[in-house]
Amino acid sequence: MRFGINLFPTVGPSDKAAVEYFDDALALVELAEQLDFHHVKTVEHYFFAYGGYSPDPVTFLAAAAARTSRIRLITGAVIPAFTHPIKLAGKLAMLDNISHGRLDVGFGRAFLPDEFAAFGIPLDESRPRFDEGVSAVRQLWTTTDLVFDGQFHRFGPVTLLPLTYQRPHPPILVATAITPSSAASAGANGYGLLLVPSINKREKVQEMIAGYRAARAAAGLDPAGEDIHLSYNCYLSEDAGEAYRNGRRYSEWTNARLLEAVSAWGVTRSSGYEGYENIVQKVSSADFDSSLRDNKALVGTPAEVVDRVTTIRDWFGDVTISLQVVSGNMPLSESQRTIRLFGEQVLPKFS
Amino acid sequence: MRFGINLFPTVGPSDKAAVEYFDDALALVELAEQLDFHHVKTVEHYFFAYGGYSPDPVTFLAAAAARTSRIRLITGAVIPAFTHPIKLAGKLAMLDNISHGRLDVGFGRAFLPDEFAAFGIPLDESRPRFDEGVSAVRQLWTTTDLVFDGQFHRFGPVTLLPLTYQRPHPPILVATAITPSSAASAGANGYGLLLVPSINKREKVQEMIAGYRAARAAAGLDPAGEDIHLSYNCYLSEDAGEAYRNGRRYSEWTNARLLEAVSAWGVTRSSGYEGYENIVQKVSSADFDSSLRDNKALVGTPAEVVDRVTTIRDWFGDVTISLQVVSGNMPLSESQRTIRLFGEQVLPKFS
Ligand SMILES: [Ca+2]
Ligand SMILES: [Ca+2]
Ligand SMILES: [Ca+2]
Ligand SMILES: [Ca+2]
Ligand SMILES: [Ca+2]
Ligand SMILES: [Ca+2]
Repeated sequence: MRFGINLFPTVGPSDKAAVEYFDDALALVELAEQLDFHHVKTVEHYFFAYGGYSPDPVTFLAAAAARTSRIRLITGAVIPAFTHPIKLAGKLAMLDNISHGRLDVGFGRAFLPDEFAAFGIPLDESRPRFDEGVSAVRQLWTTTDLVFDGQFHRFGPVTLLPLTYQRPHPPILVATAITPSSAASAGANGYGLLLVPSINKREKVQEMIAGYRAARAAAGLDPAGEDIHLSYNCYLSEDAGEAYRNGRRYSEWTNARLLEAVSAWGVTRSSGYEGYENIVQKVSSADFDSSLRDNKALVGTPAEVVDRVTTIRDWFGDVTISLQVVSGNMPLSESQRTIRLFGEQVLPKFS
Repeated sequence: MRFGINLFPTVGPSDKAAVEYFDDALALVELAEQLDFHHVKTVEHYFFAYGGYSPDPVTFLAAAAARTSRIRLITGAVIPAFTHPIKLAGKLAMLDNISHGRLDVGFGRAFLPDEFAAFGIPLDESRPRFDEGVSAVRQLWTTTDLVFDGQFHRFGPVTLLPLTYQRPHPPILVATAITPSSAASAGANGYGLLLVPSINKREKVQEMIAGYRAARAAAGLDPAGEDIHLSYNCYLSEDAGEAYRNGRRYSEWTNARLLEAVSAWGVTRSSGYEGYENIVQKVSSADFDSSLRDNKALVGTPAEVVDRVTTIRDWFGDVTISLQVVSGNMPLSESQRTIRLFGEQVLPKFS
């Protein structure tokens, strides 16, 4: 198994100044590298406390690259619908070079109606824009004199500069929220998978992973090359009671920020987002105790979290886990303690 | 006067691997900070060896920010026509925070027909897109619940995250190639000015600067707040003959890359780009000896370059100078020597 940190801010200016958020985030990246974590990951979101401090993950990861030398840098995810593919391919190629090939590129479809509205993109175009965007970026990375003739973008002949450091291109991951066919499609294409177990039943995650693995096998791809990422809210303390109380508080904070961000789904419908009409109700009724019972949060003492990770491995196999260590607006010292306890007492048991 | 370095790559993959370009560029930024230079600046260009290694200056400057603590970071320039204003405002705000307020934002209109063609933007829209883009970014930085209703972009109400570190927003500079009215407009708006003396006669630069200063004065702005940046190809050696030979060679290399990039102007016309129909001929006939005679290149021994900077000060006053220290594909050691000789023997005479 592999373990990294996922920097998913859930704060606005009245909670924490952005300068402090980024100072702390860079300090956590350096700590994660010291403790031999595999990766740092960050999101693309806008406007809401839910992720909004990170409208451009590449900008943050470029700073993280300059402060580190071994840890991998993962976009979790960039949204092709919101950036022209030439711009997106170009800046990712810069980051791949600046980091000496430490970049994995996660692409996402996005799901917040307010973000689509701001960029003037119909929600119903989300799927074709995603597919076209990933394809355009991949072709820009690998094709000389590319002529691209898509539904949303036409250009060429152009040859992108700079070339990516990793050839033919950096590893690609695809964020899949709840759709098994998307997971299978990622597998068939040789991409990795970004999954969020907290919003799915265990059986659904298993179904998506099984479909992904089956599609890889059907495509003749080596099982060793699979790349399945699961993100979990994470809080560790040597004191079980403190871990429970704070883990609960920060999870509830994060959930409340998610609720603000999805509120437009109360009045929005899109054929590309089946099931999202229930998201407000689902997020409102989320309950920390059930999520712990269902092993959907890595909260507890180091020994408890070792048990939780063991269960994850039993359920899903040798996956890659990303620890959400800033969500909930926890103080830097608690993020640091969480990373340190995990890195020293949990990670070595699974490496 | 103030002095910085301008990292304007003029190489493609057959000249220098991108990984080496960025390694070297970051090393030069650290050296420039050690030697008390004021700023590092970099460009936005695509596809051609002329600037094409830098399709997203913010990505590079974020890495530079993470490696430094005092030097200012300047986009020279970002192109609003090629990035959605929400994206551009958001990533610049991230960089402003990551750098603790060391960002100055230069905006440019761009001038290469191939870049506009690739992004599907008509050249004739360049001026209104520039004006609207700068205005949208500035409003996003300063307005809560912004409703933006422009010719090219409509959105809102939105409140951008994160807030910029510098309030109300980072200093703004405007790139002005050859148009005195643009320089005056920058002055009236309280913006700084990015000028390229190599492509203008001295009298034209003086006219633009005079118009800029007059517009500032008419707007009641303090002369001390003016910010006029001039970029020069730069090459220093203790050996006058070597400085001349190499300075000439690298200037000619850079000019040849510019010629490739502007070749579309041979068959392109746009009302927004008066005079550009002659650019191919002008660049083709450029001559290093005349440019030295006209004091348009900071090439020579430290003593010679002190004389050249003295002349610049006599002509233009207390301007900010950006040294192009990588253009021409010079080896890292020669860029380092140039920065070191300038920092140790020229800069102290004008600070
Ligand atoms: Ca702090
Ligand atoms: Ca270690
Ligand atoms: Ca594996
Ligand atoms: Ca090197
Ligand atoms: Ca010093
Ligand atoms: Ca001044």
